[in-house]
Amino acid sequence: MRTIKEFFKHDRFAAHCGIELLEVSDGHAKARMRIEDRLRNGIDVVHGGAIFTLADLAFAAASNSHGTVAVAINASIWYVKAALDGYLTAIAREVSLNPKLATYSIEVKDDNGDIVAIFEGMVYRKRQTIAP
Amino acid sequence: MRTIKEFFKHDRFAAHCGIELLEVSDGHAKARMRIEDRLRNGIDVVHGGAIFTLADLAFAAASNSHGTVAVAINASIWYVKAALDGYLTAIAREVSLNPKLATYSIEVKDDNGDIVAIFEGMVYRKRQTIAP
Amino acid sequence: MRTIKEFFKHDRFAAHCGIELLEVSDGHAKARMRIEDRLRNGIDVVHGGAIFTLADLAFAAASNSHGTVAVAINASIWYVKAALDGYLTAIAREVSLNPKLATYSIEVKDDNGDIVAIFEGMVYRKRQTIAP
Amino acid sequence: MRTIKEFFKHDRFAAHCGIELLEVSDGHAKARMRIEDRLRNGIDVVHGGAIFTLADLAFAAASNSHGTVAVAINASIWYVKAALDGYLTAIAREVSLNPKLATYSIEVKDDNGDIVAIFEGMVYRKRQTIAP
Repeated sequence: MRTIKEFFKHDRFAAHCGIELLEVSDGHAKARMRIEDRLRNGIDVVHGGAIFTLADLAFAAASNSHGTVAVAINASIWYVKAALDGYLTAIAREVSLNPKLATYSIEVKDDNGDIVAIFEGMVYRKRQTIAP
Repeated sequence: MRTIKEFFKHDRFAAHCGIELLEVSDGHAKARMRIEDRLRNGIDVVHGGAIFTLADLAFAAASNSHGTVAVAINASIWYVKAALDGYLTAIAREVSLNPKLATYSIEVKDDNGDIVAIFEGMVYRKRQTIAP
Repeated sequence: MRTIKEFFKHDRFAAHCGIELLEVSDGHAKARMRIEDRLRNGIDVVHGGAIFTLADLAFAAASNSHGTVAVAINASIWYVKAALDGYLTAIAREVSLNPKLATYSIEVKDDNGDIVAIFEGMVYRKRQTIAP
Repeated sequence: MRTIKEFFKHDRFAAHCGIELLEVSDGHAKARMRIEDRLRNGIDVVHGGAIFTLADLAFAAASNSHGTVAVAINASIWYVKAALDGYLTAIAREVSLNPKLATYSIEVKDDNGDIVAIFEGMVYRKRQTIAP
């Protein structure tokens, strides 16, 4: 999985948000993000777009883990608890894998292990493979 | 609507992404984002999380436009065209407004007027009003 | 579009729900359903599954209107007003059309023209064409 | 949970679709539906609306299991495998529970234990309790 981790080092927006890809294996990924001021919105909690981006990175890593280029076509997110401090961690698991389409469930949790958001996404799998 | 525009100046994540709130009126908002390198992912197109964040800001501005604090509880996005250069613009319109819940449709377009993504979101409306 | 209308006559679940396909043209469809007791849930309003099914039929007709077999891969619905009496009408419009994927927005309205639900869906377009 | 099971006996649309509520406990529910011809669409597989309705019933039972009236405000579904024969079974689990809002994940499986669809939904919890 070194290739996939290397590949995600080119993800400039993830870096800009301070997201770290911790683990990638077949159909699985884990990422985290430290809550800093730049991630907050007008009411001082973590911006929904930042939480989405963290989940999205775990989703992208898990869906590209098989070595086939996979692009997000759809995602839905439900926000269930405001995020204030510490780290947010996203864990992605594969729900289905077909030749052209695959789906993933991602949970975003805070340092207490409470769910902050749930995210479901679908990818379209291209013919290209991820270059080593 | 000056109050709402002022309010969104405190949105540090929107600023971090280079998002500009252009217009806010009752149930409506327009925002834009210039495509720069920091917004790109590993395959050099604009990151899904950045597109989501732009749509989300238009959604937040439109849903808070009535002066009642509204927090996002759910959003779905469909990506239909890769974004490469220039500006992305998001326009939010109100689909329904109830005392506690409201829904919004947001379209994100590129400089050619082509749809890059569609976004639908729902907010929970709190008792607080936005402080002037 | 006569072929498409004929094709949907084989949709037994739509018939079982009393759904009528009124119009189909390129990327567009309109369907309606008369509210009867069999569509109600335990609290006497129209069941969310029945409203979804009406929207889904308009979605299926619009997405198959080009003559290429299109299958639903994802849909999201937001319920904004309870439906009590009369007819519900669903209108589908095409938001994007790519060779393999296409997206549609559907509004479900009651006899007052009020929005009961909004629905967004994505299809995967197969190689087969709809047999005449 | 006898009250909740009794309550769902008034759900006429679920009965019309042949859906049986098998289990309800705090934040959990299980329902099944036998695949019959009336559930099929124009291409002879189970209609997306029927699969949604099965998932929706498990969602409704789980979200009303605490005795507080809960109404669906949003749901998303991803279809991952066509359903042909036998029974479909939906299992709902609670992901979050707040005073006014709660979210649920539902998996729909066929007789082989394969996932046919995943469904995520959010409810708004009213002040009323379910009458015994």
